Amino acid sequence: MSAGWFRRRFLPGGPLPAPRLPRPRSSPVPYRRPRFLRGSGSGPGTADAPRRPDVRPVRSPARGRALPWNAGYAEIINAEKSEFNEDQAACGQLCIRRCEFGAEEDQEWQTLCPEEFLTGHYWALFDGHGGPAAAILAANTLHSCLRRQLEAVVEGMVATQPPMHLSGRSICPSDPQFVEEKGIRAEDLVIGALESAFQECDEVIGRELEASGQVGGCTALVAVSLQGKLYVANAGDSRAILVRKDEVRPLSSEFTPETERQRIQQLAFVYPELLAGEFTRLEFPRRLKGDDLGQKVLFRDHHMRGWSYKCVEKSDLKYPLIHGQGRQARLLGTLAVSRGLGDHQLRVLDTNIQLKPFLLAVPQVTVLDVDQLELQEEDVVVMATDGLWDVLSNEQVARLVRSFLPGNREDSHRFSELAQMLIHSTQGKDDGLTEEGQVSYDDISVFVIPLHSQGQRSSGH
Amino acid sequence: MSAGWFRRRFLPGGPLPAPRLPRPRSSPVPYRRPRFLRGSGSGPGTADAPRRPDVRPVRSPARGRALPWNAGYAEIINAEKSEFNEDQAACGQLCIRRCEFGAEEDQEWQTLCPEEFLTGHYWALFDGHGGPAAAILAANTLHSCLRRQLEAVVEGMVATQPPMHLSGRSICPSDPQFVEEKGIRAEDLVIGALESAFQECDEVIGRELEASGQVGGCTALVAVSLQGKLYVANAGDSRAILVRKDEVRPLSSEFTPETERQRIQQLAFVYPELLAGEFTRLEFPRRLKGDDLGQKVLFRDHHMRGWSYKCVEKSDLKYPLIHGQGRQARLLGTLAVSRGLGDHQLRVLDTNIQLKPFLLAVPQVTVLDVDQLELQEEDVVVMATDGLWDVLSNEQVARLVRSFLPGNREDSHRFSELAQMLIHSTQGKDDGLTEEGQVSYDDISVFVIPLHSQGQRSSGH
Repeated sequence: MSAGWFRRRFLPGGPLPAPRLPRPRSSPVPYRRPRFLRGSGSGPGTADAPRRPDVRPVRSPARGRALPWNAGYAEIINAEKSEFNEDQAACGQLCIRRCEFGAEEDQEWQTLCPEEFLTGHYWALFDGHGGPAAAILAANTLHSCLRRQLEAVVEGMVATQPPMHLSGRSICPSDPQFVEEKGIRAEDLVIGALESAFQECDEVIGRELEASGQVGGCTALVAVSLQGKLYVANAGDSRAILVRKDEVRPLSSEFTPETERQRIQQLAFVYPELLAGEFTRLEFPRRLKGDDLGQKVLFRDHHMRGWSYKCVEKSDLKYPLIHGQGRQARLLGTLAVSRGLGDHQLRVLDTNIQLKPFLLAVPQVTVLDVDQLELQEEDVVVMATDGLWDVLSNEQVARLVRSFLPGNREDSHRFSELAQMLIHSTQGKDDGLTEEGQVSYDDISVFVIPLHSQGQRSSGH
Repeated sequence: MSAGWFRRRFLPGGPLPAPRLPRPRSSPVPYRRPRFLRGSGSGPGTADAPRRPDVRPVRSPARGRALPWNAGYAEIINAEKSEFNEDQAACGQLCIRRCEFGAEEDQEWQTLCPEEFLTGHYWALFDGHGGPAAAILAANTLHSCLRRQLEAVVEGMVATQPPMHLSGRSICPSDPQFVEEKGIRAEDLVIGALESAFQECDEVIGRELEASGQVGGCTALVAVSLQGKLYVANAGDSRAILVRKDEVRPLSSEFTPETERQRIQQLAFVYPELLAGEFTRLEFPRRLKGDDLGQKVLFRDHHMRGWSYKCVEKSDLKYPLIHGQGRQARLLGTLAVSRGLGDHQLRVLDTNIQLKPFLLAVPQVTVLDVDQLELQEEDVVVMATDGLWDVLSNEQVARLVRSFLPGNREDSHRFSELAQMLIHSTQGKDDGLTEEGQVSYDDISVFVIPLHSQGQRSSGH
């Protein structure tokens, strides 16, 4: 996320700034060609060292060991519009130990006996705001949190059915029946681990930012390939889609002040003190003015999906808790996303009103049963930060994927080339790629994950 | 809802009762043949007087006038298992005045100049618990609340686009653009009116029950045909489905402690005092015992869709906020539904813990654009209380609909006969109708609404 993005996410001015209109497409901001960085492009199953200078070998702070990278088919691109790169990414092999930590503590993971591990793959995109600090911390930390959370439940994951007691002890003979009736499967433990890992990472980021006097937050989009399934966890406005020959399927939903309106209004209803008398939780089509007083205007409250009319009172003239439309919608006039990591210190400008109580670190997790798909070689998952989706629709990306891959079967870098091409098509250089010739001025990061090899590689332990 | 149902909804015994297993299908409760009550069976567009003794001509308490009934094609059946009929129903024409109340106040609605009205049709099912009082009040009141709420916004509903100001005054020249950008349409005003009407009706029921010293609550499922659309509003565990030749589409979702687990746990997280130290908000596969102390067991909290393991502490041994599985799931050991009307005085047995804060009166509203369907004569909406859906799946009901209607085209009562037949098939009398020969011991109410005539009738004003 660039400084330009920063400006768009954080409204300048006083605590109750006026709504901002979209920046015109013919923006005077000078166009700079993005620095295209080739992915490792290694073949399936290999674990080449990364060749991408902006994807640092991530170190697990707790253990100080480099994660083995299996970064083939990934592409990270930065539009270079910010002094600091607010888009961050991480990918690698995920090795989950199946035994208590002990003597093997100091050995390199990838050289250990594979039977002791459940292995998977991990891809993550972090789109920072208010500086790169949170995104960098997330890229360096989240995989460790996830590994820890998965290791805490791995015995349940590899059992036919997760046992009621992790130790396997039976206290009640009907326990398997209770677990069965609740429909609890191994994948629910992975979902739970992802949810817990995001929360743990958020806490780590909060502590680290406070200790180092830094600020900021980031969105997080994570894909994990494990036991024949692909888990996509999203907190923010990045997006992942599945593209197959005859199918385009969203694998995530965006979390913005608009999509989470009812949750956010509900919190303000329960804790009105969070608004410090400065905001109204009600939604109106526009910000109300003095002339609206006493008129019946369209509105909706936390419990409403529909709209109604209310007689305008003085308190309705306050700045709205959620204001603006589409890409311009802001939470407390400040933030364009409603889920993510960090932002512990973020306050509405010149006030003491905190954003964090309204933000959720918990992701929504979607599960794709890769083993159940009749996979074709060109079935891919495309993960990208919002800059791509501002300009390209899911269908447009799918068309680009389908037009590119079949003609480049011999190219071992074709998934990286595809990621580059997707970014190219947002820069207004390739006429006809986007229907309206739209241009993105945001940082963009893209992963293209071929499912064919994942389906084969990640099933075993 | 019968007394049998009552027993199933309200667990007997102390405040922390043990989980109850489902009553066996070979229940010793004597089978009584339901009293089949024929609907009016009148042809489309007619407004015959009701012939069904258990569907009282509903009187609007506020105005003291009988609503005109347009009850063709409806069927209300009561299994007669309770002393009082806890299933209640209402249907009729909905006449929404387009002008301020004035001189015409005392005239009968249906004889007034039709141009002054927007007319629609209304069907509602109320499944009571803890006595029939709330269901009777809802059947007598909700349509009046809805009419009032619709009349408050009708000028916006009949405009090309709902205006920012109900008066039509323009304070800001861009108002139509703001409304357009928010995507606010006439149907959003109807959704809002339904949401507000349910809440208003809930307040009326609360006052009436308190004033008369009665108790109880009810679910509410409402269908409204208006301006070429069918609105289905649901609060509880009744269900409506659309059945067409090649399509079965759910038009509602059930609201139970299980389907609303996260909302309910979240409220207990925010307001732990609501549990008075008697319950744990955490979900476990079964209620924990002393032997589980110190063990790592499966659990999930309000923010989790997945599962994880936690070390059992003493507070985890409390009775769970939501306990039981499927049809046996109970909120605070007491109630099987999480949305509905009434229950203002309901408390956990022998405690002061109130159920109401966890219950929502707000319905979820689904909109079916009838005018956009290429309607066939046998396209119907089936609305029924939970007793039907306990025994028949959506697909089974659709098969029964499709097998019955084409052979009975000449029968003017065929939709009523179909409703009867659906109930018959839950009583274990017609072998082969239900796959497992299941029998319902619950009260059941069914509406079969033919869409073909609705599409033609309800479009105009």
